[in-house]
Amino acid sequence: MNILLKEIRHNPLLWLLAFVPAVFIGEKLKPQAHAVLFVLTLLAIVPLAALLSHATESVAARTGDAVGGLLNATLGNLTELVIALTALRAGQHMLVKASIVGAIVTNSLFMLGASFFLGGMKFHVQEFNRVSARLQACLLFLAAVALLVPSALVQADAQKGAAMLQSLSLGLAVLLIVAYALGMFFSLKTHRELFAGAGHGEAGEAGEAGEAGEAGEAPWPIGLALATLGGVTVLVALVSEVFVESVQHAAETFGMTPAFVGFIVVALVGAAAEMASAFSAARKNRLDLSVGIALGSASQIALFVAPVLMLLSYFLGPAPMDLQFWPGAVVMILIATLTAALVTNGGRSAWFVGVLLIMVYLVFAMTLYLLPPGTQ
Amino acid sequence: MNILLKEIRHNPLLWLLAFVPAVFIGEKLKPQAHAVLFVLTLLAIVPLAALLSHATESVAARTGDAVGGLLNATLGNLTELVIALTALRAGQHMLVKASIVGAIVTNSLFMLGASFFLGGMKFHVQEFNRVSARLQACLLFLAAVALLVPSALVQADAQKGAAMLQSLSLGLAVLLIVAYALGMFFSLKTHRELFAGAGHGEAGEAGEAGEAGEAGEAPWPIGLALATLGGVTVLVALVSEVFVESVQHAAETFGMTPAFVGFIVVALVGAAAEMASAFSAARKNRLDLSVGIALGSASQIALFVAPVLMLLSYFLGPAPMDLQFWPGAVVMILIATLTAALVTNGGRSAWFVGVLLIMVYLVFAMTLYLLPPGTQ
Amino acid sequence: MNILLKEIRHNPLLWLLAFVPAVFIGEKLKPQAHAVLFVLTLLAIVPLAALLSHATESVAARTGDAVGGLLNATLGNLTELVIALTALRAGQHMLVKASIVGAIVTNSLFMLGASFFLGGMKFHVQEFNRVSARLQACLLFLAAVALLVPSALVQADAQKGAAMLQSLSLGLAVLLIVAYALGMFFSLKTHRELFAGAGHGEAGEAGEAGEAGEAGEAPWPIGLALATLGGVTVLVALVSEVFVESVQHAAETFGMTPAFVGFIVVALVGAAAEMASAFSAARKNRLDLSVGIALGSASQIALFVAPVLMLLSYFLGPAPMDLQFWPGAVVMILIATLTAALVTNGGRSAWFVGVLLIMVYLVFAMTLYLLPPGTQ
Repeated sequence: MNILLKEIRHNPLLWLLAFVPAVFIGEKLKPQAHAVLFVLTLLAIVPLAALLSHATESVAARTGDAVGGLLNATLGNLTELVIALTALRAGQHMLVKASIVGAIVTNSLFMLGASFFLGGMKFHVQEFNRVSARLQACLLFLAAVALLVPSALVQADAQKGAAMLQSLSLGLAVLLIVAYALGMFFSLKTHRELFAGAGHGEAGEAGEAGEAGEAGEAPWPIGLALATLGGVTVLVALVSEVFVESVQHAAETFGMTPAFVGFIVVALVGAAAEMASAFSAARKNRLDLSVGIALGSASQIALFVAPVLMLLSYFLGPAPMDLQFWPGAVVMILIATLTAALVTNGGRSAWFVGVLLIMVYLVFAMTLYLLPPGTQ
Repeated sequence: MNILLKEIRHNPLLWLLAFVPAVFIGEKLKPQAHAVLFVLTLLAIVPLAALLSHATESVAARTGDAVGGLLNATLGNLTELVIALTALRAGQHMLVKASIVGAIVTNSLFMLGASFFLGGMKFHVQEFNRVSARLQACLLFLAAVALLVPSALVQADAQKGAAMLQSLSLGLAVLLIVAYALGMFFSLKTHRELFAGAGHGEAGEAGEAGEAGEAGEAPWPIGLALATLGGVTVLVALVSEVFVESVQHAAETFGMTPAFVGFIVVALVGAAAEMASAFSAARKNRLDLSVGIALGSASQIALFVAPVLMLLSYFLGPAPMDLQFWPGAVVMILIATLTAALVTNGGRSAWFVGVLLIMVYLVFAMTLYLLPPGTQ
Repeated sequence: MNILLKEIRHNPLLWLLAFVPAVFIGEKLKPQAHAVLFVLTLLAIVPLAALLSHATESVAARTGDAVGGLLNATLGNLTELVIALTALRAGQHMLVKASIVGAIVTNSLFMLGASFFLGGMKFHVQEFNRVSARLQACLLFLAAVALLVPSALVQADAQKGAAMLQSLSLGLAVLLIVAYALGMFFSLKTHRELFAGAGHGEAGEAGEAGEAGEAGEAPWPIGLALATLGGVTVLVALVSEVFVESVQHAAETFGMTPAFVGFIVVALVGAAAEMASAFSAARKNRLDLSVGIALGSASQIALFVAPVLMLLSYFLGPAPMDLQFWPGAVVMILIATLTAALVTNGGRSAWFVGVLLIMVYLVFAMTLYLLPPGTQ
């Protein structure tokens, strides 16, 4: 507990934890002040995500490779998962889908691009292990195909289409999870030497990310890590509930389209902690780590979080969710994937590569910001 | 003749030849038993395709490079061509187009993917000549563009559109055949040294494929090869006629959509012999040969078989066929091409690359299987 | 002035200058003879474009790197810009957009392809600096995304959509210009050593292009160059006015669709001078220069000329122009970009690569030629 307090004292990001009680107090006193509550929840989620991320890494650092990898896969995007689960239980499938697409696009364009840019500001040319980047890009491409083909082939004829779509979504969800599991088996077991430079997916990453990222300190003792994991998850869930309730009203108040909030704001907040790690690694010329965090996180959401949410929707929430996304979302995922593949292909980076990625992201953000409500 | 009988005795695949007479007897006795006839024709086509493939290679092995290449181009996909011609004469343009798209997608995703996977089970990392793979991928890309642009540009306004589509299809067909001929000229004549490692497209391939593939024996004498070519082609044509008649009814009986039958079942059956060769080569660490067979076959169908069928439709069959495919089919060809290009770009392979290709194929197969009838 | 006359005497292309007065005489005498006037203007624009290009290079050669680059960016596609401005003032937004898309596609497919083909006829395999080609391809890709996303996301619901589209176009225009400026800063300042082999974008190019291209002579003295720039720009503007008036009627007379005229004919004419330079460089085994001219010109039009035209439409012409292109145009830009990226990826070329690029261009040209009028 002392370690935790010491960490909080040294890490200004964690001072935001003060907003966690503020959310609950605000909700009690002014349940109708949606705009205020929305801002409070955003501010409260950032430090919780940072704690969660550090705790996950500390647990993963204690275990062997395979288990550590699995833990990272399950818990790495825990914040996004908990937010999405809360929205799922409320039956807000649109918000769930928007946050999935937003997380994929934000990670593979903005987080990657800003890492390249920040790294490129300090170093003339940076190199990274392109085998690892390619694997993640290929996994993302598979996910994009799995989301694209159904909407391209099915010209939904209402009732028949709906039943068929549900079976298809089930099948695709299983397929994506299997692909993800095999990809982890490939990179952690059978061909791990190819991914060596990437320092990626095992104890090494956890340790480095912890060090590079939040506080420059050693992993926490396992007990503290597990307790933090449990406690913070509950807090995130509670805060998310307020967040999901307030988001729609707040969007109206701020004059933002719901699409913009779902895709951009939620995604940036949910990934805040990972971004801190990725950017810090880039500025230390450890671009392997940055690329691993950015693309790894994107493919994790596409191939693991999204299908798991779809499967869980059968047990939670009012109605099962399908995996059909609106055409614009599929186009964005496909473009993000192609851009990331194009740009990481050479294994070298300079600041302008980062600019390009950020520009593509800005094209998306600008379009979503200006989108007339209701035309998603 | 002795050689032929000896080969049949040693090659269990050829025992399936017993189903050839079964098809004709069945057709006489029970012309309405479509489901049974469908299964019988499938079983009968596999060994005939194997014989045809071996005979073609034996003839090609006797001739010089250029003629051998031309023969391979003309006869290599003879099974698919004969099935399609039969469907063309019956005016079943949808089935012709489905089998074309199915063959392209099956060869460039499933055959390539399974080769990578089977090879990767035995060898840690395999290398292949990427110049050859790139040429085939570029040719496939050109074909995909030629099929994509018309449907993207023409928002078919019925009557004007139809006439225009027919002229456009004619022009594109000529263009694709010219591109294919120039590609062969390039790889067999002017720049053949670049394709050296691939052992591809000339006597070498024919011999190796024959050896690697069907029976581990030397090429047949030319007389036997020519006689087999002629005789088996007639048999395939006769069996195909029964097949084309029964396929629609059989699909209903088995609860499969016509799209699934056309794309997946027919394509797998038609390419059975080539798959045997490609897989066997992959397991002998001759991945050049596998890639050459899989992508070469796909580009052959896209740039040679499809346009030739379109041109022949003016002389055979009730009405000329155009080259417009439904949007879903174009998307599948484009994705298959991009995937193959992405994956062969590095010239190296491991088992997971195969898994990725097969997964993309499964996404297609799953979607087609679940597609409500009538929504192609 | 003597230098100018001497140059005209030695360069047969410039003899076409005789058609410039012919245009004005024709317009006075027979203002209704649209078809004749159309042909005269085409013939008159070619030598004017050549003069303009040489004058620009001469001016750029006198200045430092950054200013020279900026001048090239502003004046390099001056012919296209003046034609488009004339059409803009006449309120013919369709023609402006068609000529933008046509110039991008023609430069990145036909000019690049013909350079590879002509070079490949003389040299077995040619190498070029792929860093430079990749940068241009990435810039083109960004432009394609900026044009694709709005049309994919906005399912224009008439009135709301229109206002939103205008703001979005403004934002995207600024974004593209910033990206272009940063790209120039990157290639001319911070990382110019990476682009060394390309001899691209500064005095070197200007001198080489002048030498390689038009007349094999040294740059003009600055006074002559500036005077030529001014005088020829006025002439191009005057000729363009006749051209824009006659193009629609002439298209009908020749039985060509307006789309074909806008995309193919105008683009080929406007780029005639640059093509002469690019082809000549390819035949001298300076493929770096050819690739630089072809892709550099395409990305210049996409990221600089197009947004500038859009911004100028607020001050010139009857109504502001947006950046929404019809879907077929976006597909063509995207395919052209992908093809160029695919093909320049390896940094090596042979004649067949050129054939492939030209084939893709022919697919577009053929489709546009046959497109029923009114279905753009």
